[in-house]
Amino acid sequence: MRSLYVIVVGCGRLGAHLANLLSHDGHRVVVIDRKATSFARLSVEAFSGFRVEGDAAQPETLRRAHIERADLLVAATHDDNVNLMAALVAQRVFGVKHVMARVYDPAREETYHDLGLETVCPTRIAAEAFLGLVHRAVEEGVRA
Amino acid sequence: MRSLYVIVVGCGRLGAHLANLLSHDGHRVVVIDRKATSFARLSVEAFSGFRVEGDAAQPETLRRAHIERADLLVAATHDDNVNLMAALVAQRVFGVKHVMARVYDPAREETYHDLGLETVCPTRIAAEAFLGLVHRAVEEGVRA
Repeated sequence: MRSLYVIVVGCGRLGAHLANLLSHDGHRVVVIDRKATSFARLSVEAFSGFRVEGDAAQPETLRRAHIERADLLVAATHDDNVNLMAALVAQRVFGVKHVMARVYDPAREETYHDLGLETVCPTRIAAEAFLGLVHRAVEEGVRA
Repeated sequence: MRSLYVIVVGCGRLGAHLANLLSHDGHRVVVIDRKATSFARLSVEAFSGFRVEGDAAQPETLRRAHIERADLLVAATHDDNVNLMAALVAQRVFGVKHVMARVYDPAREETYHDLGLETVCPTRIAAEAFLGLVHRAVEEGVRA
């Protein structure tokens, strides 16, 4: 497998988990977060990448993460607007080839796709996972 | 398909989305939330169930939702501890057959399974979805 230069924006539970997994898989990973304390979520064993403290909606912060070398950016903060901004700047200003954004509001996903961004919507996929369990329960024939 | 009596705990984005879908599918749905304002997320078109305001970690709140009739309870608040409490009370005190909980902390999932609870971990499944996209990008042969 090729080793990619990956920027993960947001070091919350999801961003940290992804950064750990990608770093462990041999990718070069830079994590950006506004709060240095968030980096405590990175695993000492799994994560061997870099940390950049700053607002990823600011191009200057992305530059400090050497975005010009990035193959891929994942915007995974808790704020849809920050994710959209960081993703669009990465794609349009810095020409990052693969740009993915977490989007909480399912109604926004189509717009993101129109903009050429790949998306993961935790609300939608968690609901689908629950519905899968519910349908299995229905099939198992619970009392009506 | 059988119609189930379903209690959804937590009317945030996920709980409301699920409640809308399940009600729309013909199930009898009761949603519990501590804040009445959360019920605004329910869809006027899709949701024809009931709303109960209260703390679902309190058995009295579950009783007001007629939990003794429930086939299924989904604990989908933002608080792992509230979800665990509501799920265990539903299962152990009221004998609800199918109990599912949202769990944010992936490290807790195994314990929940040991307790007989089904789980959905948005952090884990969102990370898996992102990793799927990353692997596809790798396969597409981005520059190394």
